[in-house]
Amino acid sequence: MIMKLSQLFTKTLKDAPADEVAKNAELLIRAGYVHKEMAGVYAYLPLGIKVLENIKQIVREEMDAVGGQELIMTNLQRKELWEKTDRWDDKQVDVWFKTQLQNGTEMGLAWSHEEPITDMMRNHIKSYKDLPVFVYQFQTKLRAELRSKSGIMRGREFVMKDMYSYTDSEETHQKFYDETTEAYHRIFERIGIGDITYTTFASGGAFAEFSHEFQTICEAGEDIIYVDEKKKLAINEEVYNDKVIKDLKLDKTKMVKKKAAEVGNIFSFGGTKCEQLGLMFTDKEGKQQPVILGSYGIGITRLMGVIVELLSDGAGLVWPKSISPARLHIIRVGDDEEVVAEADTVYKKAKAAGHEVIYDDRDERMGRKLADADLMGIPTRVIISPQTVKKGRLEVKERTSDTVQLVSVSELLSEL
Amino acid sequence: MIMKLSQLFTKTLKDAPADEVAKNAELLIRAGYVHKEMAGVYAYLPLGIKVLENIKQIVREEMDAVGGQELIMTNLQRKELWEKTDRWDDKQVDVWFKTQLQNGTEMGLAWSHEEPITDMMRNHIKSYKDLPVFVYQFQTKLRAELRSKSGIMRGREFVMKDMYSYTDSEETHQKFYDETTEAYHRIFERIGIGDITYTTFASGGAFAEFSHEFQTICEAGEDIIYVDEKKKLAINEEVYNDKVIKDLKLDKTKMVKKKAAEVGNIFSFGGTKCEQLGLMFTDKEGKQQPVILGSYGIGITRLMGVIVELLSDGAGLVWPKSISPARLHIIRVGDDEEVVAEADTVYKKAKAAGHEVIYDDRDERMGRKLADADLMGIPTRVIISPQTVKKGRLEVKERTSDTVQLVSVSELLSEL
Repeated sequence: MIMKLSQLFTKTLKDAPADEVAKNAELLIRAGYVHKEMAGVYAYLPLGIKVLENIKQIVREEMDAVGGQELIMTNLQRKELWEKTDRWDDKQVDVWFKTQLQNGTEMGLAWSHEEPITDMMRNHIKSYKDLPVFVYQFQTKLRAELRSKSGIMRGREFVMKDMYSYTDSEETHQKFYDETTEAYHRIFERIGIGDITYTTFASGGAFAEFSHEFQTICEAGEDIIYVDEKKKLAINEEVYNDKVIKDLKLDKTKMVKKKAAEVGNIFSFGGTKCEQLGLMFTDKEGKQQPVILGSYGIGITRLMGVIVELLSDGAGLVWPKSISPARLHIIRVGDDEEVVAEADTVYKKAKAAGHEVIYDDRDERMGRKLADADLMGIPTRVIISPQTVKKGRLEVKERTSDTVQLVSVSELLSEL
Repeated sequence: MIMKLSQLFTKTLKDAPADEVAKNAELLIRAGYVHKEMAGVYAYLPLGIKVLENIKQIVREEMDAVGGQELIMTNLQRKELWEKTDRWDDKQVDVWFKTQLQNGTEMGLAWSHEEPITDMMRNHIKSYKDLPVFVYQFQTKLRAELRSKSGIMRGREFVMKDMYSYTDSEETHQKFYDETTEAYHRIFERIGIGDITYTTFASGGAFAEFSHEFQTICEAGEDIIYVDEKKKLAINEEVYNDKVIKDLKLDKTKMVKKKAAEVGNIFSFGGTKCEQLGLMFTDKEGKQQPVILGSYGIGITRLMGVIVELLSDGAGLVWPKSISPARLHIIRVGDDEEVVAEADTVYKKAKAAGHEVIYDDRDERMGRKLADADLMGIPTRVIISPQTVKKGRLEVKERTSDTVQLVSVSELLSEL
């Protein structure tokens, strides 16, 4: 984002809404990143949408790298498709939002997309020659969660990246599953939570012994996991028992109990789901076989919430450089002609060097500007004041450090 | 898009679904750009999402140029907000999709966003110093249209760019309204329908004498307009009468009746809507005044449909360069070693020169490849065959022309 704060329409707010109990949403609302529409339903304002797009771009690059093709399915869902897999009934899936056409035709609102994507694939997959296929989307999902008290970490409306793999054998499936596991770790690495995010064995449901979750150690998380920190593996408490520990060749005495947030999951369906929906392929011998399905999710908005929970401090947000809405936050102190000229120049030079910059050119007192900079959490703060102009230097401070450095413009830009 | 057709998961289809009656959807489905989920509800596959993103980027650039700030509101809508403006009742708004939480709380699904954006602005607009504010979003809208037979030109689920202006006076409002009118014409120009898109006077509803529509002459359109081709102005038949013609200083004998599709509209609400929702500002004299609201829509998916209706021919789609999913469509004929090597080289060189390229490297007969290229509608087709390799030239043809040229690789790339 390249923006003068005098132009940005959002103002930092003293207070979040009284009913907001999650730290992530409270900070994001106060800093002007998100707006709470209602419990579990948040809008993303200019700073917020920029963080989301940055996260999406990292995820997109890694999904493309494993051969994923991007598409976008629909929110409105056909009842008959979900009946085929017995997932329409509210007793089977308790988070459906449902609606209807004027003629009374019932429809669902997308809480997941295995069914429609698999049905659509019947147009494009007929033979083993058409496989494998890997597709993904960034989709707004709607889920009628009973409770919604974790801010953007568990929304009734949220953005998810969901990928689906269609393969002709368990071997090809497993290969892609493993490659995606690695891609997921690269994503969490790039976003700055690689070292505290664990591949976690969780319930496989009806289709497999286990699914895999990616759990990030986080006090605000809603899951309990048991971690082997050396082996970088974990077990979700839902399947944590002596047999599973033994099967996974882990040592119970080394497992540490932690609170965690699920930032991703990957899941094998075998051939069952495609068989239910009629997605079959002709193999090399001319026989009809069900396609093997895998699904791979990352909660994009949740990931943003987890970062806030983990990195923010008493003064406000702290963004990793890879997803921050800007690289620099320039503060102009006062309106002396020389200060204005110097600050304008630094803003222009930083832009020209290809950096995204927030420039606080407002007529506000310095205390407010410093507090807003801390609250907004841009990685590097640059102050231009009568004192710095006199010294021919800029005052530069990292958001995560207390050390102030005096550097020249060219030193600043060459170090970024 | 940079893609080998052997990798692209979508296959061209012989037939669209039997219930598809719109030419735009029929062609887009057959070419693998969209998938019909149900009447009026379409998914966008890799080629289709690329066209949508290209259109969005053109619109984004022009909205940014007039000072718009991008955000994204929510699909789920609060009943009480829409009750404040008397737009909750199905008798007032007949396209609501409604749903509910597990505790029975009723909610709406976004068919428009004036109410929530205006309500959100109460956090950020207090004083004349906070104005003007211009914001926009690309949003998936849901509308329970009674009928839906125009393909992606009138969806029950569709993508819209909606912008909102908040100003402190009618003068500032009018200035922005005029600037946006110009920005809209630049958009239609860049997308290739500038010369047949008319600013059109239409009903202003409860808030103004007129609103303005942007109507593109199109047989598949659902509107009737009367056009003065010299003055580049039109009147929607809903307000076409002698008084209006006279008021607009037009000449009835020069007005030509045409079918047209509404690709954009702009609308003045005055201060009424903000007053109903409590969005007031303190003016320079310290008095409370309602903020002046304008709203500015462009149907992104509809625009894609209109382009298909207007430009496609008997053989398939025809994309303008500005929104085409790729610039080049390379066809390799046969699998002679030399042909494969040459085609691979051209593909690599075109990519290296920064072009988006579709490369038909499939083991298919030439007739099928040519038919698919015509159906997919990429602007420039390049054939590499044993004959062209012998001549040391490529066979190049524009999608809109029958003339075939023989050129070298460097000539081709320098002409793009």
